[in-house]
Amino acid sequence: MSNDLSSVKALTFDVFGTVVDWRSSIIKEVSDFGESKGINADWEAFADKWRGGYVPSMDKVRTGELPWKSIDQLHRMVLDQLVEEFQINDLSESELVRLNKTWHRLEPWLDSIPGLTRLKNKYTLVTLSNGNISLLANMAKYSGLPWDVILSSELAGHYKPDKEVYLMAAKLLDLAPEEIMMVAAHRYDLDAAGELGFATAYLSRPFEFGPNGVTDEADDMPYDIIATDMNDLAQKLNT
Amino acid sequence: MSNDLSSVKALTFDVFGTVVDWRSSIIKEVSDFGESKGINADWEAFADKWRGGYVPSMDKVRTGELPWKSIDQLHRMVLDQLVEEFQINDLSESELVRLNKTWHRLEPWLDSIPGLTRLKNKYTLVTLSNGNISLLANMAKYSGLPWDVILSSELAGHYKPDKEVYLMAAKLLDLAPEEIMMVAAHRYDLDAAGELGFATAYLSRPFEFGPNGVTDEADDMPYDIIATDMNDLAQKLNT
Repeated sequence: MSNDLSSVKALTFDVFGTVVDWRSSIIKEVSDFGESKGINADWEAFADKWRGGYVPSMDKVRTGELPWKSIDQLHRMVLDQLVEEFQINDLSESELVRLNKTWHRLEPWLDSIPGLTRLKNKYTLVTLSNGNISLLANMAKYSGLPWDVILSSELAGHYKPDKEVYLMAAKLLDLAPEEIMMVAAHRYDLDAAGELGFATAYLSRPFEFGPNGVTDEADDMPYDIIATDMNDLAQKLNT
Repeated sequence: MSNDLSSVKALTFDVFGTVVDWRSSIIKEVSDFGESKGINADWEAFADKWRGGYVPSMDKVRTGELPWKSIDQLHRMVLDQLVEEFQINDLSESELVRLNKTWHRLEPWLDSIPGLTRLKNKYTLVTLSNGNISLLANMAKYSGLPWDVILSSELAGHYKPDKEVYLMAAKLLDLAPEEIMMVAAHRYDLDAAGELGFATAYLSRPFEFGPNGVTDEADDMPYDIIATDMNDLAQKLNT
């Protein structure tokens, strides 16, 4: 909170929700898929359950109940349950694989690429996501996200907010914690990074969970920067 | 050698020598440094010994004689010996640190960025270098190298040509070996990758070791592509 931001050299970004609009992207892709298969379902609920399901399964990895699994694998576990719950039958393995890869094709929020492009002139832009490297690389390629370095929880064998993830980033970037700013739309992520000495920027994403969704926004947020979107962050970092 | 190149999705690049002209860059920086300090020395020999010294020290890591050390650390070990050998005295620790970071500021060969820019439209461009992540990230930022993903031997805890490095890349990219093409100006690197099923491209860098240097070039080179430079590689991969 009292970091001197002039020492910041790299920005590490949460990706799902913070940089890309996973919910609209998933709803669109599964609706299109349903239509092509002649299946009717509540695709918004499907998307929300798919995203929601990943947290408990990830927590099982974090507590050691499950051995390490990538987000691709966790998404697939949830998907297998969901197609059963929604009674979507007769999908081939290749259809399931393709559907699961929807998470590799998420669209950025409209301000993400313009803001990142400004920030890139001054800072090293790094992903620090629970998504696996190949997912993040495919997504960047698909959407044109201008990352300098793709880092992932996968490299630490731990999921955020475990401290190992943030420490891995500092070590690989060869930077002190105060030379890195964590950027996220989620307080748990910023709290964990801030605890280790990272600078922190909260990015407001009011519609991450849809028009009626609840976000982390509050009056009192003890972060170095509170930004309304990526352009506002670029502005506040003088880029 | 008999790979079907149409399945290639990612190109993994050796960096030192293949993408950047380490020798000219190092000679220029150490000469400038010497001049600023009023030191006369054979800076070409200094550069060649600096580069040459890293192989035996890396081999000590490969055989387990030394615990894991990053290239930054290995370069520093060699530098400490060289300043003694060349009787360059009275350097401060911060001067040594700055001098060692010369390896983060290597200039690309003139064809590298134009060729990579063409290749990037079709392929995921990945570093697969013995250089550590921070070195590769700083170099990319300094020189504008358009990497999609920065991978390093550092992530495998092994140095090329140990197979662990290539297998790490395939795993993190979630690609089969035949979906990856290793690009290098060095046969040992291509031989190791090819052994594991990677496609291979030899890139000719006749002046890597200076006007009188000896390269790996030979009449019989069993690689999928032999390219005269990065533009030629882009051409041969139809980009």
